[in-house]
Amino acid sequence: MSVVRITQSLVVSINAINMSSENGKGKIAIVGSGLVGSSWATIFASSGYQVQMYDISEQQLVAAKILVEKNLQKLDKHALQRGPILTDEALKLVSTTTSLKEVMTNAVYVQESALEDLNFRIEFYKKLDELAGPNTILASSTSTIPASKFTEGLVNRERCIIVHPVNPPLFLPLTELVPAPWTSQDTVDRSAEIMKSVKQTPVKLKKEVLGFAVNRIQFALLAETWRLVADDVIGVDDIDVVMSAGLGPRYAFNGPCETVHLNAFGVRDYFRRYGNGATTVLNDMGPVPDFSDESVIQKLENDLEKKMAVANIRGYQAEREAKLIEIAKLKKALKF
Amino acid sequence: MSVVRITQSLVVSINAINMSSENGKGKIAIVGSGLVGSSWATIFASSGYQVQMYDISEQQLVAAKILVEKNLQKLDKHALQRGPILTDEALKLVSTTTSLKEVMTNAVYVQESALEDLNFRIEFYKKLDELAGPNTILASSTSTIPASKFTEGLVNRERCIIVHPVNPPLFLPLTELVPAPWTSQDTVDRSAEIMKSVKQTPVKLKKEVLGFAVNRIQFALLAETWRLVADDVIGVDDIDVVMSAGLGPRYAFNGPCETVHLNAFGVRDYFRRYGNGATTVLNDMGPVPDFSDESVIQKLENDLEKKMAVANIRGYQAEREAKLIEIAKLKKALKF
Repeated sequence: MSVVRITQSLVVSINAINMSSENGKGKIAIVGSGLVGSSWATIFASSGYQVQMYDISEQQLVAAKILVEKNLQKLDKHALQRGPILTDEALKLVSTTTSLKEVMTNAVYVQESALEDLNFRIEFYKKLDELAGPNTILASSTSTIPASKFTEGLVNRERCIIVHPVNPPLFLPLTELVPAPWTSQDTVDRSAEIMKSVKQTPVKLKKEVLGFAVNRIQFALLAETWRLVADDVIGVDDIDVVMSAGLGPRYAFNGPCETVHLNAFGVRDYFRRYGNGATTVLNDMGPVPDFSDESVIQKLENDLEKKMAVANIRGYQAEREAKLIEIAKLKKALKF
Repeated sequence: MSVVRITQSLVVSINAINMSSENGKGKIAIVGSGLVGSSWATIFASSGYQVQMYDISEQQLVAAKILVEKNLQKLDKHALQRGPILTDEALKLVSTTTSLKEVMTNAVYVQESALEDLNFRIEFYKKLDELAGPNTILASSTSTIPASKFTEGLVNRERCIIVHPVNPPLFLPLTELVPAPWTSQDTVDRSAEIMKSVKQTPVKLKKEVLGFAVNRIQFALLAETWRLVADDVIGVDDIDVVMSAGLGPRYAFNGPCETVHLNAFGVRDYFRRYGNGATTVLNDMGPVPDFSDESVIQKLENDLEKKMAVANIRGYQAEREAKLIEIAKLKKALKF
């Protein structure tokens, strides 16, 4: 018992050492400096963490640092920075390196946003595992590959976890935490605390499932959307309007459980009234669609191309971001 | 051929008579004056239509008229009125009656928001059918009963249609138009025009399906939500946050097709990259849930009761409305 206690004290001490840095916050290693990695670097720096970004080329890192600066300025412009510091000060906290060893040194938390490729990941995580400190969390941004697929044999596997953001992370705070079967509760809890400290909203999945929660919800919705379009029940533009002018504004504030709770006298009343009807409708839905059906792809592409041409997709993505910034400001101003 | 032309001219003339009224807009019959019916009365009056509300009791109609006044004041307060007129003037356009014959007289468009009960509806629509003018549209607000179930034998069945709003209709403009197999295209098109004239956003379903589009999308999402909670993958509060802090703000502006289009280099690229993954995840989802499973209901109720007690559900519904008003103002101000 006393041995356990001593061990725990040691862990706490190591924690304290790792967490300490010039400004009292630990070092965050950003591994992979693309759009997602750069967003993470922005979020951590804006919150006052020491951030080091790793990538394989100097050129990529130069571009990433410029993107981080632009991101920080955007947060400042809309008063959505994550901590009390502004761009100039936050930018001083960001360094870069092409040395994996350097980025991992003294990192309390590693946010990996590298290739979504399983074989790459299996090899890459072996290196991260070798270089990880005794208390370092190895968090992956992957949206598609469960941690169990690339962390099983690792020495530090209990400190591996999925920390999956939603695009664009700067303006959508949700982050889903998905443990592998061997991820420790301490890793889950510490990851959640770190997310809260940078004003990302953590939700904890209790176990690993394919697609995690975000994509399961998204795909369930997408499947029925596809079927309605494929069966020619409704046009592509119209099914989008069903969401954006109807269900979507509600979902911007209340999730599916709260929504049905509010759509009746509570959730029990809702399912008493509408449960049978919902079952009948769900039984009427077709099987999992064939997402490679060219006729449906063509229909979707034709209608979407008219309003959001792929040639200018970055512009339309920027428009979406502008709208999400307004929602983020609204939620902040009204404390929703 | 000439006979047909004369008949069409006659129809046009009747149309003209029906559409004419003191202020140049036709008379709208609001049949059923509960929450939904009162919202419809508000929307039409705010747009400058002559509105007559029908219900079975004077007492109910007095309450409904008070609610319409409150609704109109709310629209004014937030500068979200549907036309150029304000509460006092709009209220003058609203009359009430307990006579079904009176409400139907000279009505160009009937918006029925009565009991969601099939047997009642079958009998009630026989009366509406008898009293309908030769060009009157009979639109139902029902969310659950397809028009084919209660309009098949009617003389005017080609002018019967579902015009289903989303709650709260005052601040969520979506209205889905669902034809029965015998609903004429003219009825669909005229209903859509009337909806546009009151700043409701019409989407036209091309054929009748159970649950229409809104509830099919909502139930697909609800089913996976239920399964994730039932399987103890995620907590009730957390699955709501997945939506409200993650997917929901995007859906407030962009529907599911636009969303996947923007999440890649267009919709074709999205399905090329993620189609197989989505199929795998969808195949991993369980069957249609048993929405009467008491253990799941209990879990949902426990967690929801903590944050939105049913005893104060009206208060929480008002809170949701306040948030939707802010989104509506934002969309109007920024022309989103």
